Amino acid sequence: MERLLRKCRIRNQLVRECMAECLGVYVLILFGCGAVAQVTTTQDKKGQYLSINLGFALGATFGVFVSRGVSGAHLNPAVSLSMCILGRHSWIKLPFYVFFQVLGAFLAAATVGLQYYDAIRAYSGGELTVTGPTATAGIFSTYPADYLSVWGGVVDQVIGTAALLLCVLALGDQRNSSLPEGLQPVLVGAAVLVIGISMGSNSGYALNPARDFGPRLFTCIAGWGVDVFKAGGGWWWVPILAPCVGALLGTLIYELMVEVHHPPTPCELQTCQEVTENRTGLELKTDCEKPT
Amino acid sequence: MERLLRKCRIRNQLVRECMAECLGVYVLILFGCGAVAQVTTTQDKKGQYLSINLGFALGATFGVFVSRGVSGAHLNPAVSLSMCILGRHSWIKLPFYVFFQVLGAFLAAATVGLQYYDAIRAYSGGELTVTGPTATAGIFSTYPADYLSVWGGVVDQVIGTAALLLCVLALGDQRNSSLPEGLQPVLVGAAVLVIGISMGSNSGYALNPARDFGPRLFTCIAGWGVDVFKAGGGWWWVPILAPCVGALLGTLIYELMVEVHHPPTPCELQTCQEVTENRTGLELKTDCEKPT
Amino acid sequence: MERLLRKCRIRNQLVRECMAECLGVYVLILFGCGAVAQVTTTQDKKGQYLSINLGFALGATFGVFVSRGVSGAHLNPAVSLSMCILGRHSWIKLPFYVFFQVLGAFLAAATVGLQYYDAIRAYSGGELTVTGPTATAGIFSTYPADYLSVWGGVVDQVIGTAALLLCVLALGDQRNSSLPEGLQPVLVGAAVLVIGISMGSNSGYALNPARDFGPRLFTCIAGWGVDVFKAGGGWWWVPILAPCVGALLGTLIYELMVEVHHPPTPCELQTCQEVTENRTGLELKTDCEKPT
Amino acid sequence: MERLLRKCRIRNQLVRECMAECLGVYVLILFGCGAVAQVTTTQDKKGQYLSINLGFALGATFGVFVSRGVSGAHLNPAVSLSMCILGRHSWIKLPFYVFFQVLGAFLAAATVGLQYYDAIRAYSGGELTVTGPTATAGIFSTYPADYLSVWGGVVDQVIGTAALLLCVLALGDQRNSSLPEGLQPVLVGAAVLVIGISMGSNSGYALNPARDFGPRLFTCIAGWGVDVFKAGGGWWWVPILAPCVGALLGTLIYELMVEVHHPPTPCELQTCQEVTENRTGLELKTDCEKPT
Repeated sequence: MERLLRKCRIRNQLVRECMAECLGVYVLILFGCGAVAQVTTTQDKKGQYLSINLGFALGATFGVFVSRGVSGAHLNPAVSLSMCILGRHSWIKLPFYVFFQVLGAFLAAATVGLQYYDAIRAYSGGELTVTGPTATAGIFSTYPADYLSVWGGVVDQVIGTAALLLCVLALGDQRNSSLPEGLQPVLVGAAVLVIGISMGSNSGYALNPARDFGPRLFTCIAGWGVDVFKAGGGWWWVPILAPCVGALLGTLIYELMVEVHHPPTPCELQTCQEVTENRTGLELKTDCEKPT
Repeated sequence: MERLLRKCRIRNQLVRECMAECLGVYVLILFGCGAVAQVTTTQDKKGQYLSINLGFALGATFGVFVSRGVSGAHLNPAVSLSMCILGRHSWIKLPFYVFFQVLGAFLAAATVGLQYYDAIRAYSGGELTVTGPTATAGIFSTYPADYLSVWGGVVDQVIGTAALLLCVLALGDQRNSSLPEGLQPVLVGAAVLVIGISMGSNSGYALNPARDFGPRLFTCIAGWGVDVFKAGGGWWWVPILAPCVGALLGTLIYELMVEVHHPPTPCELQTCQEVTENRTGLELKTDCEKPT
Repeated sequence: MERLLRKCRIRNQLVRECMAECLGVYVLILFGCGAVAQVTTTQDKKGQYLSINLGFALGATFGVFVSRGVSGAHLNPAVSLSMCILGRHSWIKLPFYVFFQVLGAFLAAATVGLQYYDAIRAYSGGELTVTGPTATAGIFSTYPADYLSVWGGVVDQVIGTAALLLCVLALGDQRNSSLPEGLQPVLVGAAVLVIGISMGSNSGYALNPARDFGPRLFTCIAGWGVDVFKAGGGWWWVPILAPCVGALLGTLIYELMVEVHHPPTPCELQTCQEVTENRTGLELKTDCEKPT
Repeated sequence: MERLLRKCRIRNQLVRECMAECLGVYVLILFGCGAVAQVTTTQDKKGQYLSINLGFALGATFGVFVSRGVSGAHLNPAVSLSMCILGRHSWIKLPFYVFFQVLGAFLAAATVGLQYYDAIRAYSGGELTVTGPTATAGIFSTYPADYLSVWGGVVDQVIGTAALLLCVLALGDQRNSSLPEGLQPVLVGAAVLVIGISMGSNSGYALNPARDFGPRLFTCIAGWGVDVFKAGGGWWWVPILAPCVGALLGTLIYELMVEVHHPPTPCELQTCQEVTENRTGLELKTDCEKPT
């Protein structure tokens, strides 16, 4: 068996990375949306808002564990974009990463839909609706609270994603946090947990275009219809654009307030351009340059 | 005293492994079913669904801590079977492992029954029933939700166990997660927690033939009667068969999407067949072969 | 200041150990009983049963952190007794350890009483009662549930303490758990958490004579009167005696099922009687002997 | 981009430390007050008291991760003051640290106010009040429970801050806890969690002058008016003064009961005055002296 599996080895690095990103996002959404499905269909009897927070948090933790050694565990197009803009990830890989992240989220939503098929039918009386008392579209993607204005929603997503990046960059900055590398995925999960606890009520803390768009596409196809794009005043584009802005903002804040001011390491004082190290679970390559 | 204990040393490796598996599953079920008993008999006053999730999660953590150094902490016939099929565990040991896993679960259920004897009597009015408003059989083994079809239950258990194996294999894959080995039991517990939070409401996430069958046997003997096998439309075989399928599925997914594609290590490039290492808390032996 | 403090250095090892045990139990009870006080006086509005479980769990964690480097962090007369019987701790130290453990618990109860003085007065209307709708004695020490028989309570405490020792010994057994030593206090806390979640509803999981008797003495003196010894059918002796039996039982089970069967280490194959190592945060000295 | 950022490098150590303290407190308050905002504006539907505890706990964890490598992560004027009195931190830096800690808290409160602008308006009907059924000032700073006397409040804050320092000093004392350094922020968070669980109901466990005064200033300016200084019988000065007393008390207790009695290390037996090491995430420098 072991030998049989070895026959399937794929040597192409990009294919491997795409599969890892896909599986990582799959795990994240499988646990995250699964937790929402459990809370929704049992009407808070077998879970509450905290269990949704825990579902996405541990989903992120295991999503990172599943993929970090291969792809660096971006799991989020906004993170991939940030890394590209900072020059820490190749622009050519970006579309591939994004596609497979969305694909993983789509497949995970389909799995949750399959696993909770009977439960959703029983809860909603067979009617798949986006709004109303037995709405079930919220299991899969995010919708804003009634009181939230569009700009309020954009601000909410920008702040949330900025906070996420701030935490993740600090965790990976060995000259600051000195966290054992093997525990970064656990603390990435803790960051997702605390953001869900403190910034979740306005619009469901998507923070991630793939996490929101993949499952939304699934609900559109699987019976909820185009309402999923119309609801919340055409909300769907906010969790796609705002996290990209937020990710960049958070990166800038951390870089400008902490990371760039670290005293140069001995390596940086020489001309060592070949040193690259994975500093975070998010594959931040230090292009070790001559100080200018 | 120390010297007295030393006299009892058993040197047979299989006997030691069986005792460790038995004790490991005992701890898992003692805490897991104990948490259900506490929630059920206090009518959610001293616990809620989350505390059941935590009970099984920390039960798994301590079950692994208690046995991993001796038997590799399978604690689950479906895991043992998967390991055998993959060629990572001896087929000859399989029946012994399974028997002692079921025995441990049976003994733990008996201990919970003893510890909650007064509480169960007070809660149920002395009537041990499998269904109805004061049913107490659900403390020990799993029963499906009313809305769940048999196939829905099978799908639920297959997906749940596949997710468990996916997480556990990723944790143990040093070339991916790089988790410190001593913390694997904690994260195995976290995996059980998140599965309980996101996949628990359909049929109680048995995920483990021994976890379900041992306690069911206990309830059958201890006063609940053969109803425990009839309830839920003869549900009892689902948590025995479906986890075995799910475990294999999860193993295949992780192997085919991540593990087999890792670049060969230096050791694999030579002919080193003698290297065997415990990569996970679940005793996955790498039969380090020549790449083909 | 630093220099001033150095002048106070005490060099006597037993005095240092007693102070550490006293402070360790103080921290445990301060957080544990504080959590009960918060839940009781706010009528579950600022906490619930889970927060009591977390209070004692993290209380145990920080109690161990505060004392382990000095005294080995027994924090529990039943643990100290077990260690003595096993020959791993000196009998002469036992009464000192027990006295300072009880003293620490007494002082912590007094601190909680002081911190919640206004809250307890407001909640109980100024009447300090042991039973009834606004009873507050349960903040400090344990009382059995109405349905519990005395023998049921003894069984409950024996099983609970045995489970605690089982977990703690496994954590400290490097040949089994291989847990990083610095994290043992966290997992001791997790063990206390899971026992509270799965074995807390019958009689409040004292598991520790000092944890129960010290605060009970405080309530007796501070205004609740001798009722604290009469309530629950004279319950007070159960959490003193039963944990001692349970601790020994748990120790025996772990030793006989796992630890004594470990293959001898190289050190044990020689005659090395001088090797002593702290294997757990609970100061278990291995008297490394010739195998017989 | 990387190169562009490098141009902004600031080399002044004090400026770097102040920015790190500011960002650290910002993260702490952003998550902590955010959690209160979520619980308040959703009327406990998307959170409960435990989620507030978790918000401040994980806020502390990430606040420490964000700043510890640069400033030692005091994040609290009371901690900075304690360190100065003990001679472990420079008195000259104290006012800068305090100012930037308060500034960080102020900015974080403003961010929470912005993010929850729509939610607070919807919840309070547009009226920003300090007391009454839809009071929202409690989102930002602490107010005492109705029953609490001023002296009760002082005692509460002194005990709470003393407990915090006790835990934090034990975590950083390598000769006692032997906790891996990279995990200290996680356990600092756990200490904040357990204090919130066991000492939170009297007056909201400020424990930190900056955490309370910065956001109070924000509410005063942003529309709640001077009522924020009058409410609770002029409560505002208690969470400024009492934590300073408590921090010093806790430091003294830990030093006198445990730390000063450690046997001198080999380094201390010689005259090595140049050895300074960061023992905790809180920058406690050991001025390694000749024993007297």
